[in-house]
Amino acid sequence: MNHQAAPSSDAAFLSAFHHVATIGATDNNGVDRQALTPEDKQTRDWMRAWAESHGFEVRVDAIGNMFACLQLIPDESSTSTDGAHAEAADPAAPVSSADTSAAPYVLIGSHLDSQPLGGRFDGAYGVIAALFAALRVKEELAESGLQPTFNLAVVNWFNEEGGRFAPSIMGSSVYAGLFDLEEMLAVTDLEGTSVSEALNAIGYAGSDTPPEAITYAEIHIEQGRILEREATDIGVVEASWYTQKLDIDVLGEQSHTGATAMADRHDALVAASKVVLAVAEVVDDFEDEALVSSVGQHVVEPNSPIVVPRRVHMVADLRSSDPAIVQAARDSLRAQIAEIARAHDITINARDFDIRDKRHFPTEGVELAEKAVANEGLSIRRLETMAGHDSVAMNHRVPAVMMFVPSVDGVSHCEREFTTDEDMLRGVRVLTSVAGELVRGELADVRDGAVWVGSTVAEARA
Amino acid sequence: MNHQAAPSSDAAFLSAFHHVATIGATDNNGVDRQALTPEDKQTRDWMRAWAESHGFEVRVDAIGNMFACLQLIPDESSTSTDGAHAEAADPAAPVSSADTSAAPYVLIGSHLDSQPLGGRFDGAYGVIAALFAALRVKEELAESGLQPTFNLAVVNWFNEEGGRFAPSIMGSSVYAGLFDLEEMLAVTDLEGTSVSEALNAIGYAGSDTPPEAITYAEIHIEQGRILEREATDIGVVEASWYTQKLDIDVLGEQSHTGATAMADRHDALVAASKVVLAVAEVVDDFEDEALVSSVGQHVVEPNSPIVVPRRVHMVADLRSSDPAIVQAARDSLRAQIAEIARAHDITINARDFDIRDKRHFPTEGVELAEKAVANEGLSIRRLETMAGHDSVAMNHRVPAVMMFVPSVDGVSHCEREFTTDEDMLRGVRVLTSVAGELVRGELADVRDGAVWVGSTVAEARA
Repeated sequence: MNHQAAPSSDAAFLSAFHHVATIGATDNNGVDRQALTPEDKQTRDWMRAWAESHGFEVRVDAIGNMFACLQLIPDESSTSTDGAHAEAADPAAPVSSADTSAAPYVLIGSHLDSQPLGGRFDGAYGVIAALFAALRVKEELAESGLQPTFNLAVVNWFNEEGGRFAPSIMGSSVYAGLFDLEEMLAVTDLEGTSVSEALNAIGYAGSDTPPEAITYAEIHIEQGRILEREATDIGVVEASWYTQKLDIDVLGEQSHTGATAMADRHDALVAASKVVLAVAEVVDDFEDEALVSSVGQHVVEPNSPIVVPRRVHMVADLRSSDPAIVQAARDSLRAQIAEIARAHDITINARDFDIRDKRHFPTEGVELAEKAVANEGLSIRRLETMAGHDSVAMNHRVPAVMMFVPSVDGVSHCEREFTTDEDMLRGVRVLTSVAGELVRGELADVRDGAVWVGSTVAEARA
Repeated sequence: MNHQAAPSSDAAFLSAFHHVATIGATDNNGVDRQALTPEDKQTRDWMRAWAESHGFEVRVDAIGNMFACLQLIPDESSTSTDGAHAEAADPAAPVSSADTSAAPYVLIGSHLDSQPLGGRFDGAYGVIAALFAALRVKEELAESGLQPTFNLAVVNWFNEEGGRFAPSIMGSSVYAGLFDLEEMLAVTDLEGTSVSEALNAIGYAGSDTPPEAITYAEIHIEQGRILEREATDIGVVEASWYTQKLDIDVLGEQSHTGATAMADRHDALVAASKVVLAVAEVVDDFEDEALVSSVGQHVVEPNSPIVVPRRVHMVADLRSSDPAIVQAARDSLRAQIAEIARAHDITINARDFDIRDKRHFPTEGVELAEKAVANEGLSIRRLETMAGHDSVAMNHRVPAVMMFVPSVDGVSHCEREFTTDEDMLRGVRVLTSVAGELVRGELADVRDGAVWVGSTVAEARA
């Protein structure tokens, strides 16, 4: 393969991206490809076919993560004594490797699943960019004759979105050892279908040993307005916001909407509505935009027009750059919820879950991205991510680099999500450059205490 | 059949009632038998088997109403010139009768379907009481040798509850000519299954000509506390409350719960929660309990923990004895809803539907019930019904009598709904007495203008 080959061209990337956007396409330019639906299977099938036809070996692990592997280093070289692999091989790595004879892999990727009526960029852009970046890295190594230190694989993480199966960022968190595999396979959607059943139903309950990661890089749309407002090409993430969810169960009493006196009612929906407003309004206790909070999932039972609701189950989402702000908001909400329960003489159970600590990405990775962007003649700025990403989970386990391209109007998780072709192509170039550095050994020796300590996610869920 | 026969005994009634309560029984003494579910089919099959084994002829009409008919008058007698039938036969009756040679029928009954996690008394009591009352009337006629004027049929009306298929009181309203048959067959549940499909699925899409009604009587649990509080045995309904529903569609914009700035959100659930509270609090504008209002159905889209809701669809229910109060509340709510939409920069569509005018039951029927209760040595009082009933629909078409037995704590549409065996047995005796009078011609000649005018229900739905 050489530089003239069409497969890795900008045109080929755009063609592939816009083709994938037709899978599960909605009427308003979005996609609906929730995890393990027929549409998710179609996108996975596309990735497998594309990767195999371009020389990748595809593996699927037990939680349904897909890895398109490029073995850049022949197995025999891994037994040499050049030292790089020996140094990089981490005996504490969570993923048991049957192929310990192979050199570790640089992983690059994101996720192909979407929210219901989601956008076509969130996730899919990062996977397709990674496929093309990997192909280019392979071509450049062949042209330059430079010797890579690590292998390279592109990953499509299972269920980053968490719309159908909670919690989100599931596949990468299992891979990183933050979530328990068996526990996640048993998670069910609102219809009672388990992850395990759904994986089997679409033929993606894998049994392959995943490649052992040494470093990780991901590119994603920003989902905010900062890059657009400042006309900057690339964002590099310094830290992820502190986030937590509150699982809130409002338990009233079912009665007749006509025949029951108002004074005799214990209406779960009325109390739940006060909780929703408390969640929305708690942000007013802090500086503008220092905290974001909302209720996204909210299910009423029995949901009959003629029955006063018995139960409302909802999930609130709280996020801030400052952990103390989330904790203060959470304490305030718990106090308000107790007061609402008392006033309505009903039970409200509120439980913390999916707490994700604020985490810094390695400075060396941020600088690596900045160097790559400078070499491409583009502009870059550092920022934090309010949204969760697979890179946040991976950053618990290996040094990770997270980069953003601009989002028009900053909107995401909706059909009108948009990023221009030019911005996507710039991102592919930068990811190619970063991945090239990583396979040559950059970042592998970073041992940041913040990266390697035990998982607060797992602890919070236990 | 004679008076010593066991089939119509109190013990047989209680045995039948408590057997039916096991069909679709829930863990907490309730039942879950929504219309056209497998549990509804089981109850229907029980009624068919019981009725056929006790000498009834069972007919099922096109909307799935079941009629267990007792032809008390041989066909040949209907050609006689005694005048009673000729007088009673109403050429404007909505139900076309292939059996115009038969005398019209007194209908007695209620409904066997329930709310989700509903009680075991609401509806089922009235059908089973009617089956035993009909049997006793037949026995008493045989014993006394008195000549009946009309035939007698027990009816199980389709979908009184409206939990699965809206609007409620569907089967009796179609029979009474208030709702259009084809329109109702096309109504779908939240899963998209139509009434027509669901009727076929359980084998109750009938093609029988229903019996032609001349008068109607029903007994039901009160679903309120008045009889219990006053230690009265029987309630007789003078009028039904004015009711209406509001179909409210809140249309915001879907976005990311983490990455979207609070200022950029158009959260449908936050706006919807304010609407729910407005519906609950509008009662405070009126005297205590003069108005009841609530939201029972409330569905959030896309209902993902990580997505700011795009849409909330809900149904509000407003009821009062005084139509002007409902109309004032409705006007106030529409103004508040417009204000909420403005404040949140989103669209909220609110549409009136299922308006049911306040209707009086014929005074002659109320007096008939009072006389029957006095003859049994029991106590009675007049009241209004806040809840809708099949009798309210039937009262648009033929003179109807609606009676209540006490409800412990006044609760209904929930599992802890309760009426004692003694109260149920008193009700069966009174219904038997009223039905006996009706088959001998009572109430048939009542032509109350309020009964026979065109339907405001149908007009409101058009």
